[in-house]
Amino acid sequence: MGHRLADASAPARLAAPEEGIGRDELALATRNHGLPLEALRYDLTPPGLHYVLTHYDIPYVPDDTPWHLAIGGRVGRPLRLDLADLRAFPQVTTRVTLECAGNGRALLTPRPVSQPWLVEAVGTAEWTGVPLRLLLAQAGVEPEAVEVVFTGADHGVERGVEQDYRRALPLNVATAGDPEVLVAYAMNGAPLPPQHGRPLRLVVPGWYGMAHVKWLREVEVTDVPFAGFQQAVAYRLRRHREEEGEPVTRIAPRALLVPPGFPDFMSRARVVRPGRVALEGRAWSGRAPVTCVEVSSDAGRTWRKAELEPDTGHRWAWRRWRYDWTATPGDHVLSARATDAEGHGQPLEQLWNRGGFANNVVQRVPVLCVDEG
Amino acid sequence: MGHRLADASAPARLAAPEEGIGRDELALATRNHGLPLEALRYDLTPPGLHYVLTHYDIPYVPDDTPWHLAIGGRVGRPLRLDLADLRAFPQVTTRVTLECAGNGRALLTPRPVSQPWLVEAVGTAEWTGVPLRLLLAQAGVEPEAVEVVFTGADHGVERGVEQDYRRALPLNVATAGDPEVLVAYAMNGAPLPPQHGRPLRLVVPGWYGMAHVKWLREVEVTDVPFAGFQQAVAYRLRRHREEEGEPVTRIAPRALLVPPGFPDFMSRARVVRPGRVALEGRAWSGRAPVTCVEVSSDAGRTWRKAELEPDTGHRWAWRRWRYDWTATPGDHVLSARATDAEGHGQPLEQLWNRGGFANNVVQRVPVLCVDEG
Repeated sequence: MGHRLADASAPARLAAPEEGIGRDELALATRNHGLPLEALRYDLTPPGLHYVLTHYDIPYVPDDTPWHLAIGGRVGRPLRLDLADLRAFPQVTTRVTLECAGNGRALLTPRPVSQPWLVEAVGTAEWTGVPLRLLLAQAGVEPEAVEVVFTGADHGVERGVEQDYRRALPLNVATAGDPEVLVAYAMNGAPLPPQHGRPLRLVVPGWYGMAHVKWLREVEVTDVPFAGFQQAVAYRLRRHREEEGEPVTRIAPRALLVPPGFPDFMSRARVVRPGRVALEGRAWSGRAPVTCVEVSSDAGRTWRKAELEPDTGHRWAWRRWRYDWTATPGDHVLSARATDAEGHGQPLEQLWNRGGFANNVVQRVPVLCVDEG
Repeated sequence: MGHRLADASAPARLAAPEEGIGRDELALATRNHGLPLEALRYDLTPPGLHYVLTHYDIPYVPDDTPWHLAIGGRVGRPLRLDLADLRAFPQVTTRVTLECAGNGRALLTPRPVSQPWLVEAVGTAEWTGVPLRLLLAQAGVEPEAVEVVFTGADHGVERGVEQDYRRALPLNVATAGDPEVLVAYAMNGAPLPPQHGRPLRLVVPGWYGMAHVKWLREVEVTDVPFAGFQQAVAYRLRRHREEEGEPVTRIAPRALLVPPGFPDFMSRARVVRPGRVALEGRAWSGRAPVTCVEVSSDAGRTWRKAELEPDTGHRWAWRRWRYDWTATPGDHVLSARATDAEGHGQPLEQLWNRGGFANNVVQRVPVLCVDEG
């Protein structure tokens, strides 16, 4: 008979070979959802199609609920700001592609047991809010400061540790001018939907989703590195349990295809007819601008350059690419891969770590070209 | 080497005992999503939290795309209406709770392999549009008419059958005045989101989701019963493969709890502390108004009446209920069950059929009450 908090949590584990997705993974998959890949067609992802990952419950914040953001710690003038105070600061809108650090996890062998993403944990939105650097300048960051810790209102337990969701950024990232970290109150011109952090969230262009703290309540400037659960235990790249591991930070390059043709309901196999098939998709990197996208129609053996849309000035958003493929009857595997200006690319074989983080293995889209009908 | 459409589809099947969720089921779960149960708190579900089930791809319909609804078949005056034409008809707004016919499927033993819902495939919205009966009256239904067939723009293959998604209603349901079937163009006062049928969908109050055809393009009045795939093959209650089976129609009663306390990230176990815990949830039935909700805190052995919110006049929407529970340290299983005015209730043991349809077994919410902290 369990009476202790630790009884709610199971240890981290890897799935056994051939082990199907479990009830716990499914319970996460039915509530957190990805971008249906056909929605890669939208420059800006409609909110209900944008991926969502919430560790605990979505806090219930009806419209008339008072909300305050506290800014404190190693600052000269602690602040307590309501939404009207925040709207009085200069307003910035940035188009940002957000991707979950665990994207691709369910394709890994062995599979880390957690939110079982295939490749769809991504979305792009225009986020509007106050540059964090302006808030920190107003509060007056003290010289000893090294990090800024962000606390959300979402509360739960993880590996036996009861916690509000909390993550930190290095001071130089938090106060940077390009990109600016935002305390955002709008998504695509409307108030944040509940699942995207209503009424306030952090947006950290170029970083994986775990950094973009939702339901933001508190900003604390610290003079020691943050050692909380989501920083020191979760979101680290470890091959072995005992390692300290590197922290997960910026988004690795990835290209995805809009699946061509039409699907089978159950197998999700794609069906096309012979002839020209206009392929398109999106590519992004949080490290440097995407400079090249290549397409393969033979499971990665040969590659051709795709046409990358001209630079739209949205550095932190995905770019569209196109490629004309001539389909012939039979089975094909389509793939796309992105390379960024710093030379980061995508591997053909998985990059494995125990958390299933930052995996950007090349997507494989099986397509059946039928010669009937 | 497959060159035929049938090669895209696998036969319908049941999962083996202990078989985990497969890659195909997961691919559906990552794109179709349920209502995070804490969102049962909202009278009207925000669109991105409302459940979504799309058989094929979500059609891409940018705002400036012309769209016409054709009304034909056994009518005196076939119609071809654009969105402006539809807006010129009288406008009705109805609050409707929508549930997927496959809700609960992943909890069944043996598990039918399809969209693997647990209990969360539900949502409530206010749908605004034209009563279908007015459109049919204008078109002039001929005396031989027996059914009305609705065609969506979503296209795919299922069990080897290439199709646009298509479903029928009996003529008396399609032309009824209470409830009115709607051709809806707005959800919660805004244009339909893409995943909910932009720009037009059918809304059939009280019926499971398969009847509410999205991306509606064509309405055809027929003088013979519709024998298309989604009517004659799918969405039938069959215990054996060869049976014709009864059709799936109206929503069976169900009550769900807002999960109390807070969750463990991975196990989704709920944690509360000892003392009074205000339980709440929603209950609905597409057959008759919900008249009673009962709560059990001992896995269904004993039941107490919950307080049902007064009738809000929204017959086709869920009703809120409340119950004060006193938690004591240890493990508990909470449940709620609804009964409607016709005496339909919820079973404690599963109702099984090969499609996993219309299952309304009582929900079980394991809760750990911890005596520390």
